[in-house]
Amino acid sequence: MTQDEATPAGGESTGAATPPPSGTADVTAAVHDVARRAKVAARTLATANRMTKDAALGAIADALVGSADRIVAANAGDLERGRANGMSDGLLDRLALTPERIGKIADALRDVAGLPDPVGEVVRGQTLPNGLRLRQIRVPMGVVGMIYEARPNVTVDAAGLALKSGNAVILRGGSAAASSNEVIVAVMRDALTARGLPADLVQSIDAYGRAGGVALMRARGLVDVLIPRGGADLIQTVVRESLVPVIETGVGNVHVYVDATADVDMAVAIVMNAKTQRVGVCNAAETLLVHQDAAAAFLPVALAALSDAGVVLHGDPSAMSFAPAGADMVPATDEDWATEYLALELGVRVVPSLDEAIEHIRTWSSGHTEAIVTRDIAAADRFVAEVDSAAVMVNASTRFTDGGELGLGAEVGISTQKLHARGPMGLSELTTTKWVVTGDGLIRP
Amino acid sequence: MTQDEATPAGGESTGAATPPPSGTADVTAAVHDVARRAKVAARTLATANRMTKDAALGAIADALVGSADRIVAANAGDLERGRANGMSDGLLDRLALTPERIGKIADALRDVAGLPDPVGEVVRGQTLPNGLRLRQIRVPMGVVGMIYEARPNVTVDAAGLALKSGNAVILRGGSAAASSNEVIVAVMRDALTARGLPADLVQSIDAYGRAGGVALMRARGLVDVLIPRGGADLIQTVVRESLVPVIETGVGNVHVYVDATADVDMAVAIVMNAKTQRVGVCNAAETLLVHQDAAAAFLPVALAALSDAGVVLHGDPSAMSFAPAGADMVPATDEDWATEYLALELGVRVVPSLDEAIEHIRTWSSGHTEAIVTRDIAAADRFVAEVDSAAVMVNASTRFTDGGELGLGAEVGISTQKLHARGPMGLSELTTTKWVVTGDGLIRP
Repeated sequence: MTQDEATPAGGESTGAATPPPSGTADVTAAVHDVARRAKVAARTLATANRMTKDAALGAIADALVGSADRIVAANAGDLERGRANGMSDGLLDRLALTPERIGKIADALRDVAGLPDPVGEVVRGQTLPNGLRLRQIRVPMGVVGMIYEARPNVTVDAAGLALKSGNAVILRGGSAAASSNEVIVAVMRDALTARGLPADLVQSIDAYGRAGGVALMRARGLVDVLIPRGGADLIQTVVRESLVPVIETGVGNVHVYVDATADVDMAVAIVMNAKTQRVGVCNAAETLLVHQDAAAAFLPVALAALSDAGVVLHGDPSAMSFAPAGADMVPATDEDWATEYLALELGVRVVPSLDEAIEHIRTWSSGHTEAIVTRDIAAADRFVAEVDSAAVMVNASTRFTDGGELGLGAEVGISTQKLHARGPMGLSELTTTKWVVTGDGLIRP
Repeated sequence: MTQDEATPAGGESTGAATPPPSGTADVTAAVHDVARRAKVAARTLATANRMTKDAALGAIADALVGSADRIVAANAGDLERGRANGMSDGLLDRLALTPERIGKIADALRDVAGLPDPVGEVVRGQTLPNGLRLRQIRVPMGVVGMIYEARPNVTVDAAGLALKSGNAVILRGGSAAASSNEVIVAVMRDALTARGLPADLVQSIDAYGRAGGVALMRARGLVDVLIPRGGADLIQTVVRESLVPVIETGVGNVHVYVDATADVDMAVAIVMNAKTQRVGVCNAAETLLVHQDAAAAFLPVALAALSDAGVVLHGDPSAMSFAPAGADMVPATDEDWATEYLALELGVRVVPSLDEAIEHIRTWSSGHTEAIVTRDIAAADRFVAEVDSAAVMVNASTRFTDGGELGLGAEVGISTQKLHARGPMGLSELTTTKWVVTGDGLIRP
């Protein structure tokens, strides 16, 4: 998931926008037909220049703002269904669209239009001794599938990033937002048509329900990459079921390690920021590890500050011994070390050494982000070299693991896998490469 | 598969080197234990410098040469079993090891030692306005799994490339080479131990038979990437069954398109090179497309040359009309357009336009390599932009799609997928990246 996306709990309901075809075979055929149309449409965009793509994004942004009333009306239906199904206030808020929110979604699209075009970038190039001229250039993937949960802004974000990087997109959103998504997709498709581009660059398969999602995961050869965005259950299902290559965007069981030599004020500021600046995001800290030599100076201050901020603390026996009076601190279990709270809760453990801190991280981390706070070069170097995570922070908050914060512009998600993309995924990560080899009749001797 | 590797047909037999554990659960536990040991061993190598790794490769090369007699003796057992099982002469030749061949395998390892180390390369880096210092650096994947067929040299090649790029490797070779591989792996492990490195950097699971291969494919989270090398059946099985991310190395249904403006001599030289310089490799041409305006000048010369070289031609009606007297030319069917012959056979079709050539390639190509022969800039540009393959050649032979030929040094295989690696995979493609973010106490406002 992205750093601005918490794990929604449930929220699926049965009503799809259009009645789905009756049998699984029919759904598969229909979804694979969608994918084939996407592939054909993608060819147009693959050779389109940046100006064409940026103009299309601008047109979509204008169309969304111009259709705000229609979108809000459809959204009201989703909200009503959500309330009837007992959806929580938090999820209802994430689902809700207002003209202001639609304006922000449109602004985000215009921001994407302002980013450099990754397509055409020469990644490597040289002339070989035999005169063969080589260029490895970035080209679009082709067809990108997105499977995501309730928030309807993802519908626009995903389409915008896919189009900017020259791809067609197939969207499978949560059924809780089906009415909103149906209108949003229709508006985007109309805007593409009005700019002379194929509407099938953006297609939704929401009408095919769960079977449609399964068919999408089976569409190997028709869909080039599938990106799940949402809770751990959704992501694991896609990873397990998909024959199409998947980029796993993942769970962030994030650690902050306060080393023996850490500056106490800096360490407190970083821990507070990592835990409390925004809760429920994947780059927020979930466990605090403290070197025993720093514990006496650091923990009383840190635990008091965390407690004052309303953080429930789960400590090992040593950490418990530093609990300030009145702090909400309970004994930690192994389950705490494994948990991504996504809430105002934090595991706290005192470790005898840097080695033990690294070992704890190896055992429990999800490989998203870990931070060390230290003054010691050797400790920082070892932490950076030995912690096997997508992002490793030295004297900085874990909250910086974010496409925007790391200067990538927009973000498709944060990959916790090692293949293709690791960490925040920007536009480049939605491309592949092609070798272009030019000779003057060269043959292999 | 790599360009030097043909599709072997069958060649599996049942004899594993050690009796496998009795039940599937036992095999799974044993193989996952192998993977856990690999992961621990990989940590040592992840932080080893280039000199350490190159010295280890040199030591393995020396040990293989020093153990040539033992390896050849074990190989004799495999050859005997192969003959008893009716293995073809071609496969027996691919399986056979001699002291000379072992010397060449060792030399290839020394060549890998001479290549630059991909680990530590700074892929991107900048200082952000807030002072945050970013580096995206190459780091090893961790644990690489290889599933491959009969040729025992792959055992050494794969281990060498994995070690050089800082990874541990788990090998699952074909049972036809089980005795050879068992000795080779033992020699490599001893050489690692002698250099003070963990033997578990190189492990074989051949003793666990087919169930071991399945267990390896299920080891998500323990194995970072799985690379199948061999025939289409093997590769498709791994793609279908694996929960571990796979890099598909693939089938090459390769096309040469001779454009209206092609230089006839150049076109004949390129087609001859692409089809006949080496047969049975994935970058060899399988279909020749000819613009109708070039047919009269080009085809009689080309078909005569191909026919003289012993190539069986499968032509469409128009191509058939240019068949020289005595040529072995038969009518082509759709099956011909779909076939990777890997033999002295070639499909030949006359097309009315560049568009039709591109459309034929879209319909039938496996996305490996296609070439255009032309004098026309616009035709070359369109072909490069619209043909969606890992490598696109302009006035050069398709046989150049090869890690060595494209200057990557060694090659793990040729990827026909779009995720992570596309085209020849060198050492860099066995690495991932890590963001290293350094601040002086920076927090997110």
